Amino acid sequence: MYYDPVEAMDRAALEELQVERLKETIANARKSPFYGARLAGVNPEDFKTPADITKLPFTTKDDLRSQYPHGLLTRPLDDFVRLHASSGTTGTPTAVFYTQKDLDTWADLMARSMHCCGCRKSDVCQNMSGYGLFTGGLGIHYGAERLGMLTIPAGAGNTKRQIKLIRDHNVSVLHIIPSFALYFAQKVEEAGYNVKEMPWRIALIGAEPHTEEARRKIEEMMHIKAYNSYGLSEMNGPGVAFECVEQKGMHLWEDAYIAEIINPDTGEHVAEGEIGELVMTTILRDGMPIIRYRTRDLTRFIPGQCGCGRTHRRIDRIAGRADDMMILKGVNIYPMQIEQTLMAMPEVGQNYLIELVREGVSDQMRVKVEIKDEFFVEDMRALQGLQKQIAKNLCNEILITPRVELCQSDSIPKAEGKAVRVVDRRGEED
Amino acid sequence: MYYDPVEAMDRAALEELQVERLKETIANARKSPFYGARLAGVNPEDFKTPADITKLPFTTKDDLRSQYPHGLLTRPLDDFVRLHASSGTTGTPTAVFYTQKDLDTWADLMARSMHCCGCRKSDVCQNMSGYGLFTGGLGIHYGAERLGMLTIPAGAGNTKRQIKLIRDHNVSVLHIIPSFALYFAQKVEEAGYNVKEMPWRIALIGAEPHTEEARRKIEEMMHIKAYNSYGLSEMNGPGVAFECVEQKGMHLWEDAYIAEIINPDTGEHVAEGEIGELVMTTILRDGMPIIRYRTRDLTRFIPGQCGCGRTHRRIDRIAGRADDMMILKGVNIYPMQIEQTLMAMPEVGQNYLIELVREGVSDQMRVKVEIKDEFFVEDMRALQGLQKQIAKNLCNEILITPRVELCQSDSIPKAEGKAVRVVDRRGEED
Ligand SMILES: [Zn+2]
Ligand SMILES: [Zn+2]
Repeated sequence: MYYDPVEAMDRAALEELQVERLKETIANARKSPFYGARLAGVNPEDFKTPADITKLPFTTKDDLRSQYPHGLLTRPLDDFVRLHASSGTTGTPTAVFYTQKDLDTWADLMARSMHCCGCRKSDVCQNMSGYGLFTGGLGIHYGAERLGMLTIPAGAGNTKRQIKLIRDHNVSVLHIIPSFALYFAQKVEEAGYNVKEMPWRIALIGAEPHTEEARRKIEEMMHIKAYNSYGLSEMNGPGVAFECVEQKGMHLWEDAYIAEIINPDTGEHVAEGEIGELVMTTILRDGMPIIRYRTRDLTRFIPGQCGCGRTHRRIDRIAGRADDMMILKGVNIYPMQIEQTLMAMPEVGQNYLIELVREGVSDQMRVKVEIKDEFFVEDMRALQGLQKQIAKNLCNEILITPRVELCQSDSIPKAEGKAVRVVDRRGEED
Repeated sequence: MYYDPVEAMDRAALEELQVERLKETIANARKSPFYGARLAGVNPEDFKTPADITKLPFTTKDDLRSQYPHGLLTRPLDDFVRLHASSGTTGTPTAVFYTQKDLDTWADLMARSMHCCGCRKSDVCQNMSGYGLFTGGLGIHYGAERLGMLTIPAGAGNTKRQIKLIRDHNVSVLHIIPSFALYFAQKVEEAGYNVKEMPWRIALIGAEPHTEEARRKIEEMMHIKAYNSYGLSEMNGPGVAFECVEQKGMHLWEDAYIAEIINPDTGEHVAEGEIGELVMTTILRDGMPIIRYRTRDLTRFIPGQCGCGRTHRRIDRIAGRADDMMILKGVNIYPMQIEQTLMAMPEVGQNYLIELVREGVSDQMRVKVEIKDEFFVEDMRALQGLQKQIAKNLCNEILITPRVELCQSDSIPKAEGKAVRVVDRRGEED
């Protein structure tokens, strides 16, 4: 039923395993120049529970940059067989180095991840993402082979060839970039095929942030089940957390990582279920362990048990970047909280805009919300009721009551590329 | 000294190993629908020496097409983990399937190949070719990791980033497409670096046919040693034959393949050292053995022992495609024979043209040859002497005396892309 029995391990035993691996990780990390200095005063024996991890300092992206290229390596360079680097050509890049053991661990975690959402040895997997330095390509590739799927390294682009390969080889699993999926579905239809007759059943969609709505649209248009994946190259790449068939959050593999959610301002853990910055520690990495890495990614632990029986905690889809956090009247607010609240309401259309303004000495939030045509009726009472309901729902989520303004479809200018949803006018003169 | 002791195995023992593996291959191949029928009457016990392979029928590209996709598979599809397919979107493509065992064999052969030209575990290898369905990318990648080199999956393109990675990580081995190498050397100089100060020492250049002259130019301009590689996806991909540090031909790994050189017209073996079509049999492939495959590639076995001590026979660089063969007065002639003869003469310039014409009832060959400016002097006797010498050298190689015409530099029109070197005017009215 599970790829690895550890997936359903009893929590107490799992946490014991985490502590044991954390201790090993500290001892191992101290062989690197960076952690050798930074963890000099740390005694591994002081760690009794996973929560003791808070005794360790954070590691930031700037640390990785300043230690580029070799400061975090615990072994001679000769022991490493893979390097992935951030793609920047200006500024100091970051690089992640893997030993053969690390590649094996990563492939195992990837295979487990794909198995978790229903992929099996008998599946045929077409990897439609680019390869190269981007960890998504080779990460999925090695995992698919490890799971024993027939793996087609199609790479990105060439839609016609992709369709031919899928049809010729009965491809049942696609790894596809979310923003490409809808375009691809359209191309398949244009080529004269019915998506319902395509052999695929599972789409692995990671690499780009996307909304639940986008996922549902992909599922509907491609006639497929789409599963979210979370990863970042600092933590190997994909295979950090993955959705199970329940599609209610991504299981984060806690035998390989210790995850924390913190308030990005204070560095303290947030309350169970609250959104904050994901902080990650590798506890199964050989050549380049990273401790309490500030991912800048915002998410939350989903409370409760998962129906699939796995005991590893689930994280919610990424709710933006820590740098997107707004502070209003002393409260931390994330744009994604507002988006999720709005998109859960059937009356709300495609677009919205958050404005932060100063009114006298007090900061205010205004939220402009497009309403679907069928709800934008000439009934002032109905509209006012809707306006109040939106404000109330938002207040429940963000603890502040914003001023809500209803707009007609397409009245809010659409941004090219990444939508600009927040405008901070508090510094402007009125 | 060798990656695998088999590289220097005694010839008699090596041939015994070949026969044993050929028998296993026949038995295995017969599990596939295609060979099950085609080899129905074959008795593996009839094979006593590698030469007995001539008792088996050829396999052609058309056979692979007609058997697409599964006709050559000896196992259920479930046992395969990789598929590479030819990139055509029209017509019937060909596909090659690999089991995990096949991927391991391939990675071992690739690691051995790279070790053979001087790559070591302590090297850093930047893979500058595209990944995806092209077997060159993943082939080199898996082999580099298997050898234990730090492998950077840079992929194609982005020259600036390639240079930065090479400098930042002391890259000593490049896998680079020959036609890109000279452009790249220029870009490195333009970026303000001296190629002599770049950390590289070895370039692996395969994937595209190129001349010895092109190799020497790459070596000179990049200040590197460049090694030839031969492979084709039907035989896994790269790693079929590879140059050793002697740079006198490519050792073809005879423990994994039985190679023959045949006259493409008659199908008979050519005499030792003569050019002909390379025919290949996999004797270490698990899931999709291929027997006596007509590669259409022209080459010859290089006679004699190699100074490196390896006993596996060497093939010469690919001298074109069997389809390029000309028949003149009953003699088979390959354009590459003429090219090699001409380029070995210091007086000969960049370009030449072969014309086949009918004079009365007899066919003739005319060869127009550009002469370097410093040799194109106003001394008719010297020029006539040169003309005669070229004709004589060509006759020694192709057994026919062509009419040689000397031309000035740049007087022969240059073709875009692949140079057209042969014009057959025998069907034209004069
Ligand atoms: Zn679950
Ligand atoms: Zn040699």
